[in-house]
Amino acid sequence: MQLLGKREPEIYGRETLAEIHARLQKKAAELGATVDCRQSNREGEIVDWIGETPGKFAGLLLNAAAYTHTSLAIFDAIKATAIPCVEVHLSNPEAREEYRRHSTIAAACIGKVSGFGGDSYLLGLEGLTTFLLRKPVRSG
Amino acid sequence: MQLLGKREPEIYGRETLAEIHARLQKKAAELGATVDCRQSNREGEIVDWIGETPGKFAGLLLNAAAYTHTSLAIFDAIKATAIPCVEVHLSNPEAREEYRRHSTIAAACIGKVSGFGGDSYLLGLEGLTTFLLRKPVRSG
Amino acid sequence: MQLLGKREPEIYGRETLAEIHARLQKKAAELGATVDCRQSNREGEIVDWIGETPGKFAGLLLNAAAYTHTSLAIFDAIKATAIPCVEVHLSNPEAREEYRRHSTIAAACIGKVSGFGGDSYLLGLEGLTTFLLRKPVRSG
Amino acid sequence: MQLLGKREPEIYGRETLAEIHARLQKKAAELGATVDCRQSNREGEIVDWIGETPGKFAGLLLNAAAYTHTSLAIFDAIKATAIPCVEVHLSNPEAREEYRRHSTIAAACIGKVSGFGGDSYLLGLEGLTTFLLRKPVRSG
Amino acid sequence: MQLLGKREPEIYGRETLAEIHARLQKKAAELGATVDCRQSNREGEIVDWIGETPGKFAGLLLNAAAYTHTSLAIFDAIKATAIPCVEVHLSNPEAREEYRRHSTIAAACIGKVSGFGGDSYLLGLEGLTTFLLRKPVRSG
Amino acid sequence: MQLLGKREPEIYGRETLAEIHARLQKKAAELGATVDCRQSNREGEIVDWIGETPGKFAGLLLNAAAYTHTSLAIFDAIKATAIPCVEVHLSNPEAREEYRRHSTIAAACIGKVSGFGGDSYLLGLEGLTTFLLRKPVRSG
Amino acid sequence: MQLLGKREPEIYGRETLAEIHARLQKKAAELGATVDCRQSNREGEIVDWIGETPGKFAGLLLNAAAYTHTSLAIFDAIKATAIPCVEVHLSNPEAREEYRRHSTIAAACIGKVSGFGGDSYLLGLEGLTTFLLRKPVRSG
Amino acid sequence: MQLLGKREPEIYGRETLAEIHARLQKKAAELGATVDCRQSNREGEIVDWIGETPGKFAGLLLNAAAYTHTSLAIFDAIKATAIPCVEVHLSNPEAREEYRRHSTIAAACIGKVSGFGGDSYLLGLEGLTTFLLRKPVRSG
Amino acid sequence: MQLLGKREPEIYGRETLAEIHARLQKKAAELGATVDCRQSNREGEIVDWIGETPGKFAGLLLNAAAYTHTSLAIFDAIKATAIPCVEVHLSNPEAREEYRRHSTIAAACIGKVSGFGGDSYLLGLEGLTTFLLRKPVRSG
Amino acid sequence: MQLLGKREPEIYGRETLAEIHARLQKKAAELGATVDCRQSNREGEIVDWIGETPGKFAGLLLNAAAYTHTSLAIFDAIKATAIPCVEVHLSNPEAREEYRRHSTIAAACIGKVSGFGGDSYLLGLEGLTTFLLRKPVRSG
Amino acid sequence: MQLLGKREPEIYGRETLAEIHARLQKKAAELGATVDCRQSNREGEIVDWIGETPGKFAGLLLNAAAYTHTSLAIFDAIKATAIPCVEVHLSNPEAREEYRRHSTIAAACIGKVSGFGGDSYLLGLEGLTTFLLRKPVRSG
Amino acid sequence: MQLLGKREPEIYGRETLAEIHARLQKKAAELGATVDCRQSNREGEIVDWIGETPGKFAGLLLNAAAYTHTSLAIFDAIKATAIPCVEVHLSNPEAREEYRRHSTIAAACIGKVSGFGGDSYLLGLEGLTTFLLRKPVRSG
Repeated sequence: MQLLGKREPEIYGRETLAEIHARLQKKAAELGATVDCRQSNREGEIVDWIGETPGKFAGLLLNAAAYTHTSLAIFDAIKATAIPCVEVHLSNPEAREEYRRHSTIAAACIGKVSGFGGDSYLLGLEGLTTFLLRKPVRSG
Repeated sequence: MQLLGKREPEIYGRETLAEIHARLQKKAAELGATVDCRQSNREGEIVDWIGETPGKFAGLLLNAAAYTHTSLAIFDAIKATAIPCVEVHLSNPEAREEYRRHSTIAAACIGKVSGFGGDSYLLGLEGLTTFLLRKPVRSG
Repeated sequence: MQLLGKREPEIYGRETLAEIHARLQKKAAELGATVDCRQSNREGEIVDWIGETPGKFAGLLLNAAAYTHTSLAIFDAIKATAIPCVEVHLSNPEAREEYRRHSTIAAACIGKVSGFGGDSYLLGLEGLTTFLLRKPVRSG
Repeated sequence: MQLLGKREPEIYGRETLAEIHARLQKKAAELGATVDCRQSNREGEIVDWIGETPGKFAGLLLNAAAYTHTSLAIFDAIKATAIPCVEVHLSNPEAREEYRRHSTIAAACIGKVSGFGGDSYLLGLEGLTTFLLRKPVRSG
Repeated sequence: MQLLGKREPEIYGRETLAEIHARLQKKAAELGATVDCRQSNREGEIVDWIGETPGKFAGLLLNAAAYTHTSLAIFDAIKATAIPCVEVHLSNPEAREEYRRHSTIAAACIGKVSGFGGDSYLLGLEGLTTFLLRKPVRSG
Repeated sequence: MQLLGKREPEIYGRETLAEIHARLQKKAAELGATVDCRQSNREGEIVDWIGETPGKFAGLLLNAAAYTHTSLAIFDAIKATAIPCVEVHLSNPEAREEYRRHSTIAAACIGKVSGFGGDSYLLGLEGLTTFLLRKPVRSG
Repeated sequence: MQLLGKREPEIYGRETLAEIHARLQKKAAELGATVDCRQSNREGEIVDWIGETPGKFAGLLLNAAAYTHTSLAIFDAIKATAIPCVEVHLSNPEAREEYRRHSTIAAACIGKVSGFGGDSYLLGLEGLTTFLLRKPVRSG
Repeated sequence: MQLLGKREPEIYGRETLAEIHARLQKKAAELGATVDCRQSNREGEIVDWIGETPGKFAGLLLNAAAYTHTSLAIFDAIKATAIPCVEVHLSNPEAREEYRRHSTIAAACIGKVSGFGGDSYLLGLEGLTTFLLRKPVRSG
Repeated sequence: MQLLGKREPEIYGRETLAEIHARLQKKAAELGATVDCRQSNREGEIVDWIGETPGKFAGLLLNAAAYTHTSLAIFDAIKATAIPCVEVHLSNPEAREEYRRHSTIAAACIGKVSGFGGDSYLLGLEGLTTFLLRKPVRSG
Repeated sequence: MQLLGKREPEIYGRETLAEIHARLQKKAAELGATVDCRQSNREGEIVDWIGETPGKFAGLLLNAAAYTHTSLAIFDAIKATAIPCVEVHLSNPEAREEYRRHSTIAAACIGKVSGFGGDSYLLGLEGLTTFLLRKPVRSG
Repeated sequence: MQLLGKREPEIYGRETLAEIHARLQKKAAELGATVDCRQSNREGEIVDWIGETPGKFAGLLLNAAAYTHTSLAIFDAIKATAIPCVEVHLSNPEAREEYRRHSTIAAACIGKVSGFGGDSYLLGLEGLTTFLLRKPVRSG
Repeated sequence: MQLLGKREPEIYGRETLAEIHARLQKKAAELGATVDCRQSNREGEIVDWIGETPGKFAGLLLNAAAYTHTSLAIFDAIKATAIPCVEVHLSNPEAREEYRRHSTIAAACIGKVSGFGGDSYLLGLEGLTTFLLRKPVRSG
């Protein structure tokens, strides 16, 4: 299983991102999975990473930060690779400014976890793992 | 801790709802919490239940179904009681029809879990429990 | 066959509604069908009634009055039960105020009859009955 | 009574249109009325036909196909002649693409019947005939 | 004279609502009128109450809370009964969030009093009483 | 206390305006307050008058007529002087044409009284006086 | 000088159109000009007539009726032929329904005369004649 | 007959305005009418002048320049005095920038003449004079 | 193969259209295809021609000029006949006025060639021919 | 001549892109031109490449994929370099989802070829080459 | 050089405005220019002042306060006199409320300086002076 | 003090950018400040640079070119670092195309200077320097 594209706003600091990554690694181990944590501020690089997932990763946890609201390119990349993707957010963007209430990438994702700080990642990982195990019987 | 207002569309059947409630009760026991599961098709009844939470419940897991997109009354009730509320959905509404992409109640909630079927409730319960324990240190 | 959820604005009076129901019963008898007439001002109750149709009724004639233009909950209920539903109106809402020109529930219905006063119900019943008999061969 | 401007999309075939016309003639005879069936792909021709109705026809059954959504000229013609007009559709346009959900001509019509295939015409004829007989006492 | 449908947000507490009702009773007595105070969180129940006013009440003071901004059903009920209705609000909704700036029910009301806390009810009662006495000579 | 900027549409006549002013003077005397009545058709002059209120007047009753819907300058002036302002209208603008349903100045006012003809001014004066006396304890 | 495309709604009757044409002929004679009066209900035919004006007519008086608000084809035809065109209307469309307030063809015309009944044509003819004589010195 | 509120953009120069006024005086004399020409850059002053027309003037020719597109106050003043008003423009605003295509005052006017430079005033005067003579028989 | 409905704005002249048709005939001959060139200013006539294509033509090259942006009827006709249609334009409408940036018919076409003058037709013919030969294996 | 920025969605595979590039090289050779094929997922890199074209390339074939609908930066770069650019697409984006129907870059391009799979590139190259040869005489 | 129309909201006090004017006079002297400082709350007066600039002033520094967002009349006056105008603001309106984010007058100005308090005027004066000296060579 | 992210459209040439940077260095020296000039076409790189400013730079001058209108990522980065940022533009974007009239980043900036060519940078630097010196006493 892959874990990719966690872009933290600087408000949460570098350490916090490292810590979340550490907690994710630990949680993955408990779940019998492996994660690969990456971070980038560049839309194109995230698109490249998504493009490389087929055949290598079973799923994707994605915090696209501000690109969440604008990036058709990320949306197209998730659609094109058909990788099961979970949208995660530290905060609850729909409770913030108007322009953060619409997610452009949501329509390409299987689900979303938002508002629990770093725990959003762990809950998303848990949900994604369960989803991958149950895949044949899941429904809307 | 309270668990309230789970309104399932009939597509998932009566049993499924009962089963999710059972799984929620079990999960809550593991987390050392108690849940109270209710279901209603009436917006006013849900508003009433929310209005009765202060002093009785520590948090709220809410699947508002179609009212998610239209109910200012539910939004107002959550705001008025200031109860920590997690929005949950079986499916991922933002990946469905256009009119399901906007959540009227999201701006009153601390977070959201969607797209994992009945697991959305369990992940939401886990996130809410952790949130209530960490409350003084959580931030956006 | 079921006939449900006829909500008359008070402008037409209690008697008129009773009379329409009587005429519907008579027409249904001529067509070899049975109708069950109900009236409610509450959105949630109408949703409940629709939720109870599967296995009991073959079709639905629905005058949702003002909820026609706002109720995603009724729309969802018709979709969820997949019951063939005909939207009926005493007046022609599309020839009235701007906000009555859009029907939220229309996209879940098989057809519409509007503008013929109480006759809208009878024509709708006739159309629905024929639809149910021809079902396998009908097309858009 | 007149019956005019039935423009069928080619999906229903030439025969079907002829058959509906035949069924309309038969139904009209039962109702003691006479119908004049016409078909045109041209907006201007339909406007001309409507302009010629005063003094010759008591009512109008109109399937304006795609012009339903765009033609102010047809709307104006119905308004100008003040002929009682019933909008009919084989399918239910409000359950189709977004741009078919608004009817430009509806505000000039007394009512609408949609979604019953060729039966929409017969139900519309029945409603129009009854309307013309009851005219002095009908209300919205 | 009737007084109906006062729905207080919980922020103002149960006592406050009781106190306002008491003050309204006292004010009505001074004005030689009688009031009937009711409170409900359900849109359908409010619609029912309005539907029962003809022949029993001369006027209506209505605080529709969040339904102010969304309820076509309440708008229709006021229109249908033609009861003189005054819209009242504890706060000034037009000075709050954007979505509270539009009142769906205003167009069915004779006037509005907002922003004076519980006094909004008393001023509204005073205005409504005077309106009912002057009725034949009032103009826009 | 100040009373300023009452701009009556000519429909109500010069006398009527003088009469309302007289009634306002009388009501103010009863309430132990003093009012200063002014009338202008000019947006800039109204802005000037508002700008001169600080230190001279305790509150403002304002019927901004058509400028209600367009004047950011009046909105800014009320905000800048922070004078408690009550928006009054003879008619109920929200029950009239679409473009009269939005009030640009409302967001700078403490409340609104509309629809009671000249009585709107008297009720507004009463509400404003009470507001000024209770000021420390009022809430939204 | 040419005069073309006068499409009268039937409300004004056939005679009236003939009379206006007669008055136009008389007025043209007084102004030393010749007019060619035509009438059609068909958008395409009007486009054809405009396409034939170059080299034959110096100007165009056009009452496009309902096509005023919808026809890009007529707009394009006037632009393509660059013929000086005056938009005329019997009534004042901007004082009627919302959808008549926008003219699609106006941006291709040199001016407009509306609201004077048949006199709109005569005033338009006078304005157009003067425009053609002054052409080199006219400005916006 | 009155002629009021001609606000020329400076592009046409002071002389031009004087000349148009002179031509208007001459044309009025030919038509047996009297005109009173005024010019102001201030919206409030124009509103004042319109307010003074009843009992003194039979009609109004108005070039409201930029206020054409924004002034509800002028619209209200024309409506309130019910004076027959003709909207005139030197240029054709509907063939200019997007924001000049909507006239806020048009809905209060009997007609419009635009695009003929100074001749727009003369044609408007002619149309207004004829309108006043024919008044009892004019229709839309 | 069929070639139909080339409507040139007059800016390009009669000869140019003839020349383009000649070049199309020549190009078609090279590609081993036959073309039938038609031109009409009438929306209804174009709809008729499209309606006649099944069984006679393999494909359609269509320059719908101004109808490109407004004609649901042409859109419906292409959809109904399911004929492979290529939208062609002499200019690049998306680089022109705002209202030319949306094509109503595009969603019914397999592709588009625009901006190359008469060459747009030839490139479109080439693309359409290749498309028809490859049909079974082409994808989006 | 230059050929730049072909960004293929992964749905078409790496080979296909290589094949199209090969076919483009071959076609260019036939036309006596040279092409330089590049591919990038990064908006900034595409902007850089466009910025380097002046003095090196005569034209540009651009498939901007998802950036087609959002990138003002690419639009600005094409405008700034004034390089003749042809927009190409494998599919017909205007026949797909709503948000793909608007092209942000189209207004900076001379033309467009879409919907012919890899052939779109070849037809675009042919059109661009001819355009560059005819440049002095081409028009809208 | 002219300096005109500085309208300060009262929040900044009378002294502050006088001080800014003094600083402007001093800065102008350093730059070898003369300024004429004026202040008005009336849109029409500002329009008058702008109308008087030709032949007297070389440029204009304008803080139009709330009229910035609504005044087409000021926009037209700047356009008509073609005077180089710099828009200045004490605060940064685009970082405030939504309705302050659009400037109606910006499109008639050569530039803007905002957000530096009184320094915005001095920087604007400096930029305007340099602009006037460089005029023949400046570009967008 | 930092100076970052100046992205010039190629229209101004490489030299011009170097010259502006030189003038900025000289101006900074006069003001006793140091500037660090950078240029990039990549949104992600600009976001990276802004993320690195805390602790290193006191302020930011930013010409975000086309990203001004679309980049939520840059807006978020400025907000997150809370660095005082001045938006600068060579031209006046609000006087250009419609889509350049809205600045997405403005709400995160302290002010704006636009329209003075390279001088916009120098005036912005001067304003920013003064702002940083006065910081404790500046207000809106």
